[in-house]
Formats: sequence, structure tokens, C-alpha cells
Amino acid sequence: MKWWGWGAEDVAFSHEGKPELAPFIQRVLELDVRRPGIAAMRFSDLDVPATQLPGELRARLADAVGAEHVSTRDHDRVVHGRGKSLTDLVRQRRGDLGRLPDVVVRPGAEGQVVGIVQAALDHDAVVIPFGAGSSISGSLEPDAGEPRPVISVDMSRMRRVLSIDATSQLARVEAGVFGPDLERQLGAEGWTCGHFPDSFTYSTLGGWIATRSSGMQSDRYGDIAELTRGLRVVTPSGILHVRPIPSTSTGPSVREMVLGSEGRLGVITEATIHVRRVPPERKILGYLFPSWLSGLAAMRDIAASEASPSVTRVSDAAETAFSFAMREAPALLDRAKSKALQTFLRRRDWDLEAMCLALIGYEGTRAHVAEQRKLTERIVKRHGGLGIGASPGRLYDQKKFDTPYIRDFLLDRGAPGDVSETAAPWSRLPTLYETVMAAGHGAFEQLGVPGYLMCHLSHSYHAGACLYFTFALNPPDDHDGLEDYGVVKRAIQQAFVDNGATLSHHHGVGVEHARWLAEDISAPGVELLRALFEGADPGGNLNPGKIVARDSSAGSGNAGRVTAASESHA
Amino acid sequence: MKWWGWGAEDVAFSHEGKPELAPFIQRVLELDVRRPGIAAMRFSDLDVPATQLPGELRARLADAVGAEHVSTRDHDRVVHGRGKSLTDLVRQRRGDLGRLPDVVVRPGAEGQVVGIVQAALDHDAVVIPFGAGSSISGSLEPDAGEPRPVISVDMSRMRRVLSIDATSQLARVEAGVFGPDLERQLGAEGWTCGHFPDSFTYSTLGGWIATRSSGMQSDRYGDIAELTRGLRVVTPSGILHVRPIPSTSTGPSVREMVLGSEGRLGVITEATIHVRRVPPERKILGYLFPSWLSGLAAMRDIAASEASPSVTRVSDAAETAFSFAMREAPALLDRAKSKALQTFLRRRDWDLEAMCLALIGYEGTRAHVAEQRKLTERIVKRHGGLGIGASPGRLYDQKKFDTPYIRDFLLDRGAPGDVSETAAPWSRLPTLYETVMAAGHGAFEQLGVPGYLMCHLSHSYHAGACLYFTFALNPPDDHDGLEDYGVVKRAIQQAFVDNGATLSHHHGVGVEHARWLAEDISAPGVELLRALFEGADPGGNLNPGKIVARDSSAGSGNAGRVTAASESHA
Repeated sequence: MKWWGWGAEDVAFSHEGKPELAPFIQRVLELDVRRPGIAAMRFSDLDVPATQLPGELRARLADAVGAEHVSTRDHDRVVHGRGKSLTDLVRQRRGDLGRLPDVVVRPGAEGQVVGIVQAALDHDAVVIPFGAGSSISGSLEPDAGEPRPVISVDMSRMRRVLSIDATSQLARVEAGVFGPDLERQLGAEGWTCGHFPDSFTYSTLGGWIATRSSGMQSDRYGDIAELTRGLRVVTPSGILHVRPIPSTSTGPSVREMVLGSEGRLGVITEATIHVRRVPPERKILGYLFPSWLSGLAAMRDIAASEASPSVTRVSDAAETAFSFAMREAPALLDRAKSKALQTFLRRRDWDLEAMCLALIGYEGTRAHVAEQRKLTERIVKRHGGLGIGASPGRLYDQKKFDTPYIRDFLLDRGAPGDVSETAAPWSRLPTLYETVMAAGHGAFEQLGVPGYLMCHLSHSYHAGACLYFTFALNPPDDHDGLEDYGVVKRAIQQAFVDNGATLSHHHGVGVEHARWLAEDISAPGVELLRALFEGADPGGNLNPGKIVARDSSAGSGNAGRVTAASESHA
Repeated sequence: MKWWGWGAEDVAFSHEGKPELAPFIQRVLELDVRRPGIAAMRFSDLDVPATQLPGELRARLADAVGAEHVSTRDHDRVVHGRGKSLTDLVRQRRGDLGRLPDVVVRPGAEGQVVGIVQAALDHDAVVIPFGAGSSISGSLEPDAGEPRPVISVDMSRMRRVLSIDATSQLARVEAGVFGPDLERQLGAEGWTCGHFPDSFTYSTLGGWIATRSSGMQSDRYGDIAELTRGLRVVTPSGILHVRPIPSTSTGPSVREMVLGSEGRLGVITEATIHVRRVPPERKILGYLFPSWLSGLAAMRDIAASEASPSVTRVSDAAETAFSFAMREAPALLDRAKSKALQTFLRRRDWDLEAMCLALIGYEGTRAHVAEQRKLTERIVKRHGGLGIGASPGRLYDQKKFDTPYIRDFLLDRGAPGDVSETAAPWSRLPTLYETVMAAGHGAFEQLGVPGYLMCHLSHSYHAGACLYFTFALNPPDDHDGLEDYGVVKRAIQQAFVDNGATLSHHHGVGVEHARWLAEDISAPGVELLRALFEGADPGGNLNPGKIVARDSSAGSGNAGRVTAASESHA
């Protein structure tokens, strides 16, 4: 895994073979991507602070997992020191490594995790669970001033599908399994979990659960919160065991306390998850809408209808233009078809600059797919949408996990970029979108830098949907890119919570989103989280400072007083 | 409302007009229900302990809600002192009233609830929220030895639908609204919430949320946990406001902490809930299966299929026999049809004693209903099931909210009975059923009393379903009916948790189910709940002792030690 970027060392994005991309980026970011990128610093040039692991603790950890699975090597500690947020990557590239973990341990079984946590409690050390390291919310980095030893618990050896209950459509799985490995093991028996986040190739079941992840086919399969029924978690008071009950009335849901807990309650070792038979047919089809609002309205009507597609996604005009710019050099025939389509649309008075690309997926038996498609396309048509066949969906399906590599490609060329996603009720989405776009563009303007901001709707629910924004900017050499990035990111996030939307739909809170938590879930909501974390982990040994900041003075002043301060009419 | 039984004073169940019922009860319980019942004690003969409400607190409450909404009247205090569990009703009938609340207050607005909670904190009083009083888990009764003043907060004046967001299919509703009133207000605008628990007529939105309720059409509409998106709760640290976000990644779900909290975190004043357009067509059809196992298997296959009915329910043979015994005197034609059906079934070698009645509901447009019915009936047929038309469903629809009255009818005649429901993965249901039946019948035998135990499956999910057991027993005069009842109830509940099933699917924990909590969610799970409750309410003023017992010594000994004691392989 790259210590300075996304994914495997030997994989990179390139604009080559995509003839429209370089001109597109030149136009929107004033950036010439044909110039070679700046290589990251060499690892050997990094100044890696020495581990402060006490010998006694090392011995305890070696006892627990075996000495060969206890590593204080520099590369391990650097790779495990952070996730992959833009902020993380820029600092890594600058050689600013932060407070590295003192040791990386790799347990192979639940009992070994018990040993690690027990050793950490006995030696007052900090435990930070690590899946595949793709957090973009700062959930993996130790507090800068952490004086105690820090243990990164890399779960990747615990990767087995333990059993499949075919009758109940449930699989018991170890939490450290990576996405592709999980699907390979399940697929060998004819099953799928159906959870495909963009980070799929570099994320784990435990990580999905710890961040309340959502996959691109969530319309059909549900978010990870729905997919996860049973859990085993090593906590300071023993092994928390949530049975795989379909629905229960046992007080506030302990299952839901583990979901999104980002390591603050313990180490997730195992989950029992929904599985389904691999569907006989699977289609993702492309559609064009004359405008963003018509696309939004169609997605809403589909969610309120009796149709049940597996994917609903529509890009705004800016993202549509980007998608088209990403096309590989088309065959002559395709080019001709594309021309014919453009002519057809112009004749129907479409504004080609405003047009929006949508992807809708269908899964199941052939009859079901045909029926869902019929029901859905009736709604698409009512909103002026037009089917354009399977090729956009096919391209999406092939490239869907490549997006994070593009970020590195731009960063190599000095242009930081990232994503911010949210969710809100359907009625708020048009205003939310306008406000976020205005906030982002306002930030570009305030900074005086070229920037691009685009959006898609994905993950439809009964009452609302996720809006997923992607942005990039090209700061001049005399700007601090990280600071400029921060201005844009904060403007977007603030627009979310100011408009009744959530700070994150599926990326978690970590430290990067923590400042908006009270504006989202209200101050008393933060107090409930604090009560839970502090009560469950009185020593603050479990990934402290994440989600709710360590300093508890802000909240405790309220105790015993019903304040109206938190009242909000959003 | 009856102080000694279910529902309105002027409504009662009767066996009259149901010619088969009295003989059926005679046969299974050796009870002659044609004899008149024993009337409950007269209210005026009760020994109602005087209120201990301090004058200063009364003044504060009167300031908050107006003096006319502060009641210390005996009848109010008795009605609000408990719910409607069998244990509650027997003790009420005996004049054993328990620790009554000192005062019943009826706020009319959220600000008034703030005033009540603040007054309670300032005077170290206990607050117990009260919806319609139909809890059957002991969630409403003050601790027997509670030395502090106890305030029952009756939410029934807060009953308005505040607004409907048609685009998002969301309604903001005050938490004190009763089921029928909610549906009437929504129905006037063409909407429905679709939540119909058996207690519908005497339960409130806030009560559903506080107990994680489930309605009979949950297959289509979802449990209350799914239906509830936004929340407002008066807590000691202010007004907790959960925005109606369709899905979010803001740490452990605060929304899910309020669901099932039974008053331990505060007073729920408002919720934003899913609503749907009243469907153009709605059908509940009857089916017969040759055996319980074939019925179970059909329900599982329906849940795993592409069909999406709104109701799936199948009774075991015992409940089927009871349903048939409940029929009103049939018209000649119906009697002839029934004979013809029996002859038909016998010819096909059906064992009429083993046969099981199922109800399957369909809702939506005419085309959707027809399509779902076609898909579902294909599965029914594969399992040997047989459609018997609309009349069983019609009868069920008319009588579905009457069940609690039957319990009073039997209790009037000395026969205690109640319900216990659970949920588990599909693969466990056959064994679970057998074990629970054996446990119940074993208890009847051990006591030497006639008893009846019956079951239906309802609420199907991807990975499992709810089994709902109903039982009654007829202890001789020299037995304590409550003790005998307890033996049976405990045997059933213990069989649940011993077989990987939950202690309750939708009735909550209260105090009556609290003893099984650690066996269900594991000891560390109980510790998480304790951390939440104690942190959010350090003074223990909010419905103390419910879900997790007050004495915290059991748990805190574990702190700082990872014990393996809680490990369970169920």
C-alpha cells in the first residue's frame, strides 16, 4: 500500500487514452496535466520518529499475537499512522507524519485481540483499530500530543467467512476481510453481500461497520447498518456479543452503538451480515435528463413508487461534463452515434450544457428486471429523461473503484481535491444543492483560485437521498494548498449543516467532521455520545478524541440544567 | 380508561354470538365461560395511598403546565401507576396498587415539558413519561421503594400532526397522539403512517418509539425504528434534536438511542415519521397450509423472494383452532362452503388437526397487488398451501384490536393469560418453536393446571421473523394465579434466550424482561446501556430502574478488565 496515496504502489491513474480529459482539466482548473507530476518524497528521505513502545508492553503484545506479528518497522508505522483524506495525503507528501503509532500488531483470532486490548488497558496504552486505512475523516491518527504508547491493530489477518446460514441468508465473517476477498469467498458459494462503496478495494467489513458505510447498490441491499445483524466486539468489559436478530426491542440498540463507533467502544472482530444469492441478471443503464432538477424529481418519484431499482444515481451538469471528458477514445461507430444523439437532443431543444447523466441499476430474475425497468422508465420518461443504453453503466461498472487514484493524479500536479457527501429529505435537496454550489464557488472566488465542484445524487431512501460533491482546486504556487483546500471543504460542510443536511452520509466523523457534530445532532446528542464513550471506556484507551473531542468541559456544564440553547428549528 | 383492565370502561369482549368458543375454552382450559365473571373491585373500595407531592414542586409544575393540568386525584394516579401486563392487571384487581405516582401532569407543548423536567431535576423528583398506558413490560411503574416524588407525564394533550412534507413523505407529529387519532389526521390529507400494533387503539407515537414497537404491516412499512426519522426529546442537557435525515454517518446513531429508551433519556415530545399515500387497493387473503413447518417455510421463501407483500402471518395448529372457534355463527351458505372445504381437504389427505391458517396482505396499485399476489401464491402453492379467499382476512381486519379485551374476559373468570413474542433467524425458528412449546407445556404440567399455548409467525425480515406466543392457564382456586402465570411466562422467556432468540421483538424490556437482558445482548451490552443511561441522567431522575436495574454494582466490577465470561456461542 502507498504511504503517500491511494491503493497499490504499482497502480496509477493516467489521462492517456482519454483525449478529452487534459483539455477539460485545462479549461476548468487551468492545469496542464500533460506536464509530468511531482513525485512523492522518497520513503528513505522521511524523518520517521522512533517508536516509544515500552519493552514490557511489546512483550505482552508478542505474547498475545506472536512476535512475528508485532511490528515497529518505520514503513508499517507510517502506513498505519493515518487514513487517506486529502489532509492526510498532503501532510504525508510533505513528510509531516504526525504522531505515529508506536507499534502495529496483526492479530489472527479474537482471543489475540482480547490479549491486545487487555495489554493496552494494563499498560494504559491507546488502541486504534485499522482495517484497510481508507478513512477520509481522520479516524486513524493518534492525537498529536498523545503521551501514552499507541497500538495500531491491523485486522487484515482476520479475513475468513466463517459460515453461511443459507436458510437465514446470513454469513458470519471476520471483520478484517477486504471487500474483494469477501465477495470472492461468498461468490464461491453463490452468494453476495452486495456492499460496494467506492473504497471497496481498500476497505474492510469492520471498517464499513465502524463508519456506517454505504455501498453503491444500497437501494437494493441497504446500508451497512441494515446489512449488519450480529456483532462481536472486544470491549473493556468483555466480548460484546450482539446476536443476529432480525429486529428486537431490547432497549436502545447496542448493535447501532457499534455501528459508526470508529473504534471508541472496542475492536470489532466479527459480524453476521445479510447475504443474497448472486442475481441471475444485473443491468446498469444510462439515461439523460434535460436538467438537474428534472433528474432529481425523477429519482424522488422512483423512490416513492412501486419500482425498486438497485442503483439510482444522477449527476449534475458539471459531473456529467466530467464523465464525458473521461471517455476513452471512441471507436468511429461510437463517435457517429454520439453525434447523432447530440443532433437528436438539439432538435428537441435540449441545452447540452445543462444535461445530466443518470445511471439506474436493476437486479434479479429476468422477469423482475424487466418489470422494474418498465416501472422505472415510465417515471424517467415523465420527467423528460431518455434512455441511452448500457455503455455508460458498463463504463461506470469498470471504473467505479478508480476515483481515488484520480485524486493522487491531480495532487501530483499540485491540485488538491476531495469529496464531501451528505443526505437530507427530498424537499431540501434543490436548495441544499444550490447553497452548497454557491458556498464552494464562493470559496474559490474568495481564494482567487480556479476550482471545480460537481455533484451527484445517489442512495435513494423513502424520505430523501445522498448528495455527493466532488471538488478540486488549483492554488497558485504562493498559496498553501492545504489551507486553500480547507477553506473550500469547510464552506461545503458548513452549507450542509446550515441547510438541515447531515455532516456525512457514509464517511464518518473522525476528527475532520467533529466540529459540525453539535450542529447536526444537537448538543444534547453529543452529550449522549460522550456519555456512551466515557462510560464504556473510562480510561480513554480506545481511539480517544474521535467523533467527540477529548475535552469534556464543553458539555458537562449543562448537567442538571435543561437548556434551550440547543433548540434548532432546522 | 379502565383502571383494572384494557381499554374503555364500556367495551368488553363476550363469547356470545360465537357458538364454538365456549365449548373450545371448556375443552382446552376446563373453564366454563358461560358462568358470569367476577367483577373487579369497586374503585371506591380501593385503599389509595395519599400523594407525597411537596407543595413547592406542585407550584413549579402548575407554573409549567397550568394548575388545571396538574392532578393528584386518586383515579388519575391509579390509572397512571402501571401499564397493562397480566401482572399489572392482577395486582390492580387485588387492590395492590404499588408505588403510585404522586402527581399526573398533562403538558400541552414542548416548552411545558421542559418546565416539568427542570422542576423534577431541581426537586430531585422522578419523571415517568406516559402515553396511553398499554405497556406490558412494567415500564410505567415507579420503583416500589422510590423515596422521591414521582411525576407521571401524560402526553395525551400533545396530539397534533404539525406538518406534512409531501415531497419527502414525512410528517412532524407530537408524540402524545393515539394511533386512531394519528391515522385520522393523516388520512384527512390522504396519507397513512401504516403502523398498526395490536395495541393501536391505546398506544401513542411516543410510546411506540420508546418501546421499539412493530405494527402488523411492518413487512411493508417497517418497524417504528424505520418509520421514525426525526426526534425531539427533552433531556437533562437540553432539547435533543435529531434531524429527519434518511441515513447518516455521525457516529453511533443518537436516533437509535432514543428508540427503545423507555423514558430513561428524557421525554419524547415530537417525531418526524414516514408517511405514505393511502394505497388504492388493500387486500388481506386467507391461506391454509397442511402443517406449521410448511407454513414457516413458505413465509421464509416469500421473504427471500422478489415478492413484497404487506403482511405475512401464519398461525400454528393451536392458534388456527382458536381462530376457527372465534367465528361468529355462520350463515347457512358459509357453513356449506366450510363443509365442502373440509371434505376437499380430507380427500387430499390433509390432517385437519395440523392445518395452519395464514394471512397474507397486499397493498398498492391494482397492478402491483395483482403482481405481488401472483408471485406470492406461486410460493404458497409450492409449499402445499391453498387460498381460501378474503373472509378470514376481513374478520382479522375487523377484530385485530380486540385481543386485549379477551384477556380481561378470561381473567374475569380466573384464567390468566398473556403474550410473549420474540424474533430469531429463519434457520432457528423450527427448533425455537418446538422448545418454547415444550417449555410452556412443561410448565403447565409441572403446575398441574390446564393451559393453552399457541403461536403465530408475523413480521418477516430478510434474515428471520417474529414468533408471537399467546398463552392462558386455569389455575385451581388453591393456587396463586399470578405465581402460576409467572412460572409459565418465565419458562417461555427463558426458552427464547436459550435458543438464540431475543427477549422481546416489540414489547420492550421494562422491568418484566430485564432479567434476561444480559443473556440476550451479553453483559458488555448491558454495560453500554448502563453507561448511556447513567451518563445522560446522573441523578437517576428519568424512569430509573427500567431496562437496566438501578444497582450498578454488578457491572462496574468489570471495568478495566477484558473478561471472557460474557462470551457466548449462541
